[in-house]
Amino acid sequence: MREPTMRISARNQLKGTIVEVTKGATTAHVRIDIGGSIVTASVTNAAVDDLGLEVGQPAYAVIKASDVMVAVD
Amino acid sequence: MREPTMRISARNQLKGTIVEVTKGATTAHVRIDIGGSIVTASVTNAAVDDLGLEVGQPAYAVIKASDVMVAVD
Amino acid sequence: MREPTMRISARNQLKGTIVEVTKGATTAHVRIDIGGSIVTASVTNAAVDDLGLEVGQPAYAVIKASDVMVAVD
Amino acid sequence: MREPTMRISARNQLKGTIVEVTKGATTAHVRIDIGGSIVTASVTNAAVDDLGLEVGQPAYAVIKASDVMVAVD
Amino acid sequence: MREPTMRISARNQLKGTIVEVTKGATTAHVRIDIGGSIVTASVTNAAVDDLGLEVGQPAYAVIKASDVMVAVD
Amino acid sequence: MREPTMRISARNQLKGTIVEVTKGATTAHVRIDIGGSIVTASVTNAAVDDLGLEVGQPAYAVIKASDVMVAVD
Repeated sequence: MREPTMRISARNQLKGTIVEVTKGATTAHVRIDIGGSIVTASVTNAAVDDLGLEVGQPAYAVIKASDVMVAVD
Repeated sequence: MREPTMRISARNQLKGTIVEVTKGATTAHVRIDIGGSIVTASVTNAAVDDLGLEVGQPAYAVIKASDVMVAVD
Repeated sequence: MREPTMRISARNQLKGTIVEVTKGATTAHVRIDIGGSIVTASVTNAAVDDLGLEVGQPAYAVIKASDVMVAVD
Repeated sequence: MREPTMRISARNQLKGTIVEVTKGATTAHVRIDIGGSIVTASVTNAAVDDLGLEVGQPAYAVIKASDVMVAVD
Repeated sequence: MREPTMRISARNQLKGTIVEVTKGATTAHVRIDIGGSIVTASVTNAAVDDLGLEVGQPAYAVIKASDVMVAVD
Repeated sequence: MREPTMRISARNQLKGTIVEVTKGATTAHVRIDIGGSIVTASVTNAAVDDLGLEVGQPAYAVIKASDVMVAVD
């Protein structure tokens, strides 16, 4: 299945470059460099295959606002 | 209740500065500037009060890896 | 901000039609008819405005696999 | 442990039939056919065992409203 | 709609007593005492109405394992 | 990377003792005894290593209010 192209309600769509893709048994970890900060995403192996995710590729880290916490020192 | 100080398993702890705090009836939106990218967090009003969150304050956007998706153009 | 058009890792992208949009103080509820089943999404008011969500519009309910539970009778 | 029988606050309880169960090292993927749409759930292997989830079994995909995003073409 | 009675894959089903229900514009906060610890749930107002949630009522806090983080001092 | 010490907006910070740590290919399960109730967390293997999580160690189960559901019998 090729994923449709869409605009999405998730408030956070941070543009960067994929710097690491690690597949596990069913779950993969994808790391994206967002202007110097590294964001780690835990996604299905199937998603990695369907989107053809590879190191060096431009990509967005997409995060729903209700999944973001705030912390202070 | 004062929140305890702790180190947390969440893989994503992005340091920035709070640029907006908007309280609703029960849910508040906090926006954090992370090196030029704005991250929006939807948290309880109670959390805003307990942590004393204010515009201009240094803060982290904390996100569990399993809550991050990856998108490509 | 206009949201970029993208393909996303979320495994569940269910196509349907928006049947209800209810805005609260900061959080809106959007209901989508997916072939007879109604799916309720809780999103920010800002997302409703940015995407121009309206009753009658075709839309996808997008859900990360790690956010889906399984239940049996 | 046998899970208790309960009614739950999650707004989305979509009834269907399990069409695939794939176990990984710790995480399993369960696919449910909801009136023609396939919903993928990522759950623990332990949940698959405790609920006795099998292909062909009727089941619900249960999703909290705050975990549903909305997308448009 | 009366919610169906079901057994669910969520690994965490903590039994307690409801000690507070606060409704907002669209989102309600429900606090449950679990053997002395208070757990706060943010759910839709509609869920509060459909389940008839009230202070003093026995209830479970239900949490998917992938939504639990671990922290240390 | 050593995780910074912080106070966090997540409403639920339940103190207990780690009773089990099981690593998978990429995802680990950590079980924490909270005054007699066991809470299961699904986190990355990397988080287990970085925080040095071990059986017998005091730890918090941290859960965002928007990830808690309420169920009744």
